[in-house]
Amino acid sequence: MNASNSAFKAIADPARREILRLLRNGEMTAGDLAQQFDMSKPTMSHHFSVLAEADLITRRRDGQTIWYGLNTTVLQDVLSWMMDLAGTDTKGRKK
Amino acid sequence: MNASNSAFKAIADPARREILRLLRNGEMTAGDLAQQFDMSKPTMSHHFSVLAEADLITRRRDGQTIWYGLNTTVLQDVLSWMMDLAGTDTKGRKK
Repeated sequence: MNASNSAFKAIADPARREILRLLRNGEMTAGDLAQQFDMSKPTMSHHFSVLAEADLITRRRDGQTIWYGLNTTVLQDVLSWMMDLAGTDTKGRKK
Repeated sequence: MNASNSAFKAIADPARREILRLLRNGEMTAGDLAQQFDMSKPTMSHHFSVLAEADLITRRRDGQTIWYGLNTTVLQDVLSWMMDLAGTDTKGRKK
C-alpha cells in the first residue's frame, strides 16, 4: 500500500473528484475550475489545498494566474492498490 | 462516474482498506478479521457496516458465525473511475 492516506481522504469528496475529472484533459486555471462549481472562493481554495497536499494536483503560478494540473503519479499508486484488491494485475488482466 | 460516493467514503479510512485487503484472498469470519485489529467490537462493527452499506463487502450468516467477503463489482466501478482519470483504459493501456 503505497498511496498515502491523504489521497484516499481527498478523493472521498465528490467535488474534489469532479475537480480531478475536469483536469483529466490538461491544466486549467483556478478561475476556470471555480466557474464549474456553485461554491464560495474559500470552499474552492480548501478543495484545491486538500488535493495539492495529497499530491493529486500540481499548482503553478503564471503572473496573476494559478494553473492546476493532474499529478498522475499518486493516482497510479491509488490505482495499483485498487487493482491489487480487485484481483487485476497492472496490465488489467484478472489474476 | 458509476461508483457510489459511499464507496469512496468507505475506502477513505485506513482500517477499512485493511479489512478489504485481508478479504482479498477469500471470505473471513467477523471474529478472524477482528483479531487483526486492536479495536473495540463496536468500532469493528461500525467499519463492517460502512463497508457493507457501500456494497464493498458481502455478509452471510452460518449458524453463529458471520462471514464477510469482498464484493468486487463496486470495486471495479471505483477502479474504472480511477483508470479513466489516470488515462489508462480498462485493459491497463495508456490512452
